[in-house]
This record gives sequence, structure tokens and C-alpha cells, in this order.
Amino acid sequence: MKKHNFNAGPSILPQSTIENTAKAILDLNGSGLSLMEISHRTKDFQAVIDEAVALFKELLNIPEGYSVLFLGGGASLEFCMVPFNFLEKKAAYLNTGVWAKKAMKEAKGFGEVVEVASSADANYTFIPKDYTIPADADYFHITTNNTIYGTEIRKDIDSTIPLIADMSSDIFSRPIDVSKYALIYGGAQKNLAPAGVTFVIVKDEALGKVSRYIPTMLDYRTHIKEGSMFNTPPVVPIYAAMETLRWIKAEGGVKEMERRALEKADLLYGEIDRNKLFVGTANKEDRSLMNICFVMKDEYKDLEAEFQKFATERGMIGIKGHRSVGGFRASCYNALPKESVEALVACMQEFEKLH
Amino acid sequence: MKKHNFNAGPSILPQSTIENTAKAILDLNGSGLSLMEISHRTKDFQAVIDEAVALFKELLNIPEGYSVLFLGGGASLEFCMVPFNFLEKKAAYLNTGVWAKKAMKEAKGFGEVVEVASSADANYTFIPKDYTIPADADYFHITTNNTIYGTEIRKDIDSTIPLIADMSSDIFSRPIDVSKYALIYGGAQKNLAPAGVTFVIVKDEALGKVSRYIPTMLDYRTHIKEGSMFNTPPVVPIYAAMETLRWIKAEGGVKEMERRALEKADLLYGEIDRNKLFVGTANKEDRSLMNICFVMKDEYKDLEAEFQKFATERGMIGIKGHRSVGGFRASCYNALPKESVEALVACMQEFEKLH
Repeated sequence: MKKHNFNAGPSILPQSTIENTAKAILDLNGSGLSLMEISHRTKDFQAVIDEAVALFKELLNIPEGYSVLFLGGGASLEFCMVPFNFLEKKAAYLNTGVWAKKAMKEAKGFGEVVEVASSADANYTFIPKDYTIPADADYFHITTNNTIYGTEIRKDIDSTIPLIADMSSDIFSRPIDVSKYALIYGGAQKNLAPAGVTFVIVKDEALGKVSRYIPTMLDYRTHIKEGSMFNTPPVVPIYAAMETLRWIKAEGGVKEMERRALEKADLLYGEIDRNKLFVGTANKEDRSLMNICFVMKDEYKDLEAEFQKFATERGMIGIKGHRSVGGFRASCYNALPKESVEALVACMQEFEKLH
Repeated sequence: MKKHNFNAGPSILPQSTIENTAKAILDLNGSGLSLMEISHRTKDFQAVIDEAVALFKELLNIPEGYSVLFLGGGASLEFCMVPFNFLEKKAAYLNTGVWAKKAMKEAKGFGEVVEVASSADANYTFIPKDYTIPADADYFHITTNNTIYGTEIRKDIDSTIPLIADMSSDIFSRPIDVSKYALIYGGAQKNLAPAGVTFVIVKDEALGKVSRYIPTMLDYRTHIKEGSMFNTPPVVPIYAAMETLRWIKAEGGVKEMERRALEKADLLYGEIDRNKLFVGTANKEDRSLMNICFVMKDEYKDLEAEFQKFATERGMIGIKGHRSVGGFRASCYNALPKESVEALVACMQEFEKLH
């Protein structure tokens, strides 16, 4: 039976990424050696990281003066690296979900933290829009896509203070205006690579403005200076990222990824809104293209377990919603084919007919 | 031509690790999904990390009260995590090489650091032994194997204060008495896995004794509590580590690894000492079993480039010495077969005959 991988992350990757990474692990470029057992200082691996950086810059149209880094530790480590490098006195955070809250919590260890707005009281079903960014804060932090709640900030925000964004789950799903950001970071395990590598896009001149001691590994300038090779980088995830970036380019770039994401989301949200059994959980105007959350309408609530089983038997994987929202979540990352969404929609329609 | 992989790290891994990791990337356990695109919260991956932890405990005979963690960021991140978690006032470090020095440098950002002894003046050709560990320091930090200089502390040290060891490059090469240590850490990319995962063996009750704020991701207690799953761990390197641990167990465990390491080292050091062209760089009593460093004798110094070419043509990979030592370095990690050392020895003998 064909599997449809709606996992929220780690999640579906292009078939070419999977196959070529497996191939490189068996033998890199016909060298007779595995990708796992060569030095990161070899020409072969330098070519990999160089290509990954170049494709990042090309695909996201990153302007001069920005560096692209591949680090270890995950986005959760960035939650403290950001205040380490940017928080002198005060930081501003937009609280749009669990991950935004975790980022905010770490910043509190370093200085004053202002929550400019929050949708916590509404279980994060919307993105707050009516707020003022404090002009005297060192930076403003946002989480562009909220994987758990299925909301997304799809327009680049204007900020007069340095803008910092966690884009773990929507990077490469649309064109972004990088020049509006001081720093963009994310775990790679959604649209890019297996878990184990974190990407960072940082405006070089935004750094060096804090007075505190920064441990070497937590200082972005260390990694800029050493081209992400201050220590041995996570070679396999970086290789996989390069393969995914090649795939994005070959498929038509981030504009095409956005077109596909819109097409898939229209299909699935359309069915959620039409089907008598289901209802979406996020405010319509803030709906995420990446993570589509829906539950059974109150009157059909007792059918949820049955639908979960029904869909699983038809090859749907990873559609169980996060416990804090319940119901279902279909993650539609770049590599998920339209056919998988069509299969899920067919499943929902078939189930509706039975009830 | 058969390649002999003497890389210093990332370095040779067992063939079963390479083949089975590639297989899992194509399809994990016949699930129809790649290891790279499943949730780390699935039963399939939980089984992987559980087995890796259990094999760590079994193979190293780790006593009760210790936790085994798999983290991101590399040993270089541990250089600051150690003082974050252990340094209240004063730390003691043994300076046996570049990595020990880097670890010491990070600690200086957190408190007073005492260098109890150093072999820096002798270009780290020996392990200092005549020193006193300050009784009032919070911990004593050692680097058990010095990859660049080819020296190794092969006997577990007695310390009345908590002993912390970077075992990046000799873990699983010999039995160790874990009970003598408060913490053992290392990058995995020598005897264990591809780069991208750090192992930590920590005595639970040694933690929680510092008063400073510790960012969540840098606090070992976070990772103990969450079983290395506070955030998404590096799944591919952890999978590869599990495969290598299986291999070590199947081959006879760490005692057998030590027997093989001694056998390989005897062969190669024997040839270095016998051959009229070469000389070892490290003091004999401190010679590393993992990284065997040697240069041409002064009178043959001008033959180094020629031997490098000669050996490369015969399939030797990664034998160029680090720039701070020069000459040659043959790293003989667990997965390197005796045949590779024999091939290198034959190469040295053939070259000797030519000159």
C-alpha cells in the first residue's frame, strides 16, 4: 500500500535526497569511501558545504552582508544563542505557540523580555496583529510557522528594530525578503534535511553589539569566521540538505514551492470547510500552509478514533493532531506530493459518506 | 585498489555500520519510510536510542546512577557545557594538547582555571604525570587521547575531586572504570558514528551543584530528564552509533577492541622503531594506540613528500600528520583492520629499501 507521509517533523523528504544520501553513505563520488568516514576538511566535503551555502543564497535571494551557517544542537539551542548574541538589555517576543514560548523562556535568563502580544488565551488559534514593537528593545523575535497549532505568518513583518525569526517549519516554502531580518534560524528536519543540523542566516553587521562573555561555540561570529567548520559539522545532515536544495532548484525554486503549497492547502482546507464532519482549528486568515489542523465537529467528536483508524488503514501516516489541539494534523511540507493530499481528501469524503 | 583509511576523524567505521545505515535511510525496518523522515517519537526510533543507551551501559560496564546522553553540537560545545554545569569557583585542567587547551579556554569564561600541568613547551610529546590536583577545585578535566600529538592516558586516573574526561578519540578502545569519573564526553566521529552526535556519560548526583543560571539546552539535567529527547536528536548519527555498538559487542566487546588496538600499535610502532628512515614523535610510555605519529629522521627529512606520495599511490588515506607535528599520522581506530596496518608497514619497508 502506498504510504502518505504527513509527519510534522522529522518529515517527508524528496526521494532524491533519500536515495542520494544513502548512495553517498555507501560511496561518496566513487571515492571508495563513505560520506561518514571522510574528513570534513577534504575537497569532497568542502564542495558539499559550499554548494549548500550557495544554493541557500541563490534560492532565498540572500543579499550581500549575510552569512549562512550550518550548526548542531537544533533550533532549541538557538533559543539561547539568540539572547547570548543579541540581548543587551531588553528583548521583544511575539507569543504564537509552544515554540515561541520556549524561545521567550530562554531569553529571560539574559535580560528583560517583553511579550508584545500573545494568543495563548485562545489556545494559539490566531496570530496577534495589533501590537507595537518596543523601539528600545534589542530585537523582535517571531516564530513564522506554528507547527502545533497550524498558524503561520506568511508576510515578512516590518520592524524598526532587528527582526529575528524561527523559520524551522516553513523555510523554503515561499520567497522571503531576507533583508528585513537580522537573523533567521531553524532546525532542518521539516523542509530540508534529517534532524541534526540547524541553519542560520545572519546579517553580519547585526552581531557584536552585546557586552557579555559569549562561549566560543555559542558566538555566531566563530562560525562565520570558520565557515561552519570551527568544529566538525554534522556531515550527513548537511549532505542531505544540499540534495534537498538541488531538488528545490530543479523543481523551480521557492516560488514553485509556494505555488504547490497553496494548491495543496486549498485542496485540503477546501475539503475541511466543505465536509460536514470536520472543522479547522486555526483562524482562516492565519492558516498555515505547512501544518493543517482540523478536528471533528462537536456533534461527531466520538468519530475521531474511528477516522484515525480509517485513514491509517488507507496509508495515511502521522495525521494525529498534537495533544494540545487534538484531532488531526496533516503536515504538507515541500516534498509531500499533491497525490497524498488528494488521497487524504478522498479518505475524508469516503468517511463522510459512511456517517 | 584497496583503500586503507587512516583518517584522524571523521574516520573509518565498521562496514556493517555503513551498510545498515544506508539501508535504514532507504527503508527503516521494512516500514516503507526512511530513517530520515520518521518522527523521533515513534516506537521505531525509541527502540534505536534505547538500544544505543543499553549497549553503552553494557559495553562500558557503566554503574547505576549514571546517565548516557546523545546530544548535538560536538565535543566543542561540551567545552562550555562542562563549566556551565560544574564550575562554581575554580576548575583544574591538564594541558596535554590543542583540544585540552580549547576546553580550558572556555572554562576561563566561567571562573578561575588552574592548569595543573602542561607539556606545551615540549610540543605536547608527553603526558605530564608529576602534578597535584587542587583539592579545592570543582573538578579536574583531562583529555584522554590527544589526536594531534599521538599521546594517550590509558589508565584511569585517581582523583579526589570530580574527574571529567574528553574521550572523543579513544572511547570504546579499552575497558574503563566509569565509577572514577563524574562525566565522560566525546564527539562520536572516531570510534562510534559519523559527526553530528556527542555522547555524554554523567553521574547524576554530580550535577546541580552550581548556582548560576544554565540555559535549558546546556543543562545536562534537561537531557537526562527527557532521555536525550528534549528536542529532536540527530537521528541518523544515533542510528549509526547503535550499529557500531552492535558491531563492537559482536566482535567481543571493549577488551577485544583493546587487544586489537595493542596488536596494531605494536606492529606499527615496531616498524617505526626498526625502520632507519622514521622516528616516532611521542614519548614511548605515552604513545597513543589510536593515533600513531611519526616523522622522517632528520637526515631523511627531504623524503617526506616522496613517502607521502609513495604511500598514497599504494592506497594509504589520511596519513599526513597535523601541521603542528608534521610528518605522518596513522589513526588506528577500532574499525581499522590489521591488514591496513600491515599494508602501511609493507609500504614503509619497501620505501626503506629504495633509500
